[in-house]
Amino acid sequence: MRAVESFLESPEGTREEIMRATYLALCTHGYADLTVQRIGEEFPKSKSLIYHHYDGKDDLLLDFLSFMLDRFRTAMPFPDAAGPREHLEAILDYVLATPLPEDRREFTRAMVQLRAQATHDEDYRAHFTRHDRFVVDSLEAIIDRGVAAGHFRPVDAEAVAAFLLVTFNGSMLQQVTSEPTSGSAVRDELDAYLQAVLLADD
Amino acid sequence: MRAVESFLESPEGTREEIMRATYLALCTHGYADLTVQRIGEEFPKSKSLIYHHYDGKDDLLLDFLSFMLDRFRTAMPFPDAAGPREHLEAILDYVLATPLPEDRREFTRAMVQLRAQATHDEDYRAHFTRHDRFVVDSLEAIIDRGVAAGHFRPVDAEAVAAFLLVTFNGSMLQQVTSEPTSGSAVRDELDAYLQAVLLADD
Repeated sequence: MRAVESFLESPEGTREEIMRATYLALCTHGYADLTVQRIGEEFPKSKSLIYHHYDGKDDLLLDFLSFMLDRFRTAMPFPDAAGPREHLEAILDYVLATPLPEDRREFTRAMVQLRAQATHDEDYRAHFTRHDRFVVDSLEAIIDRGVAAGHFRPVDAEAVAAFLLVTFNGSMLQQVTSEPTSGSAVRDELDAYLQAVLLADD
Repeated sequence: MRAVESFLESPEGTREEIMRATYLALCTHGYADLTVQRIGEEFPKSKSLIYHHYDGKDDLLLDFLSFMLDRFRTAMPFPDAAGPREHLEAILDYVLATPLPEDRREFTRAMVQLRAQATHDEDYRAHFTRHDRFVVDSLEAIIDRGVAAGHFRPVDAEAVAAFLLVTFNGSMLQQVTSEPTSGSAVRDELDAYLQAVLLADD
């Protein structure tokens, strides 16, 4: 995740500094209690720069979400593993880690709050549609590579990817909104699914 | 769902009338724009009755969530199907219906907004923990029955149930916060998982 989160440690330029301030304020205050004023408190330069660039909290948050997605797009945050199976497993290890490390738990909490805005705000909905599409496309590409190389059975890669996305989103939602029902169960069952669907004839 | 939703058509007593008003106002306004005043507008009796019983919006909403969960508990809203496999399938057909019928979509939108409160409110978190626990226990009981009767392989029923819950919550979240990536993929892949894990040696 180094390439994705480097703006937190060494932000380059005003935009990255605003994005860093947004990230920190969002993790601290959550969506409901977030204000441009509070984002400004995490920003080392004049607050008026933020007001100059953004029309308000949601305008800034939507730009922040785009910024984060762009960073994922350009620096897919997982090692180029030995093969497609190892690549999938590295992603599952990261996304389905239980319990989440505390810093990721804070950010996940904020992301669930932002995602809930998409139930009634078209701009947030458009963002999370792009977000989900990006995750599915990325997973689909890995699965397709595995099929082409003969590592995986000739599955419907998009369907498998869409199913993985649902488990990612469900796991993320539960981790920050209820007590876990059973630690590693989701990962174990997903492994059983992938074994049966992708690898059964190996 | 008849037994669960009958309070909407023929509420019995003041509490059910308040619950009905809460349901309607929540579907119409969503969490953020909901007020006790707006719930009162859906209530046929004196609004002062609501203020008498509840300390505010969240107190009322938490009681509403308990009310809904109790109805599910006492009238598990799925037919006592021919066997455990058919019972599981009836639940999957209901929960993973795509697209959701419009009335269920409205309610799901509201539930996602309420669930997002659980990221920062202990009372909401305690409710959704009970809710998730109830779903897992119910699914686990069906799977256990299937194992005992020799219809299913001797699986870890709680782990399978916990995995199903994650797919339910992920699917619910996506249905109301992004455009669907691919209609029936989740159900199809879940069928493949259940076939491999529960039924493979049939």
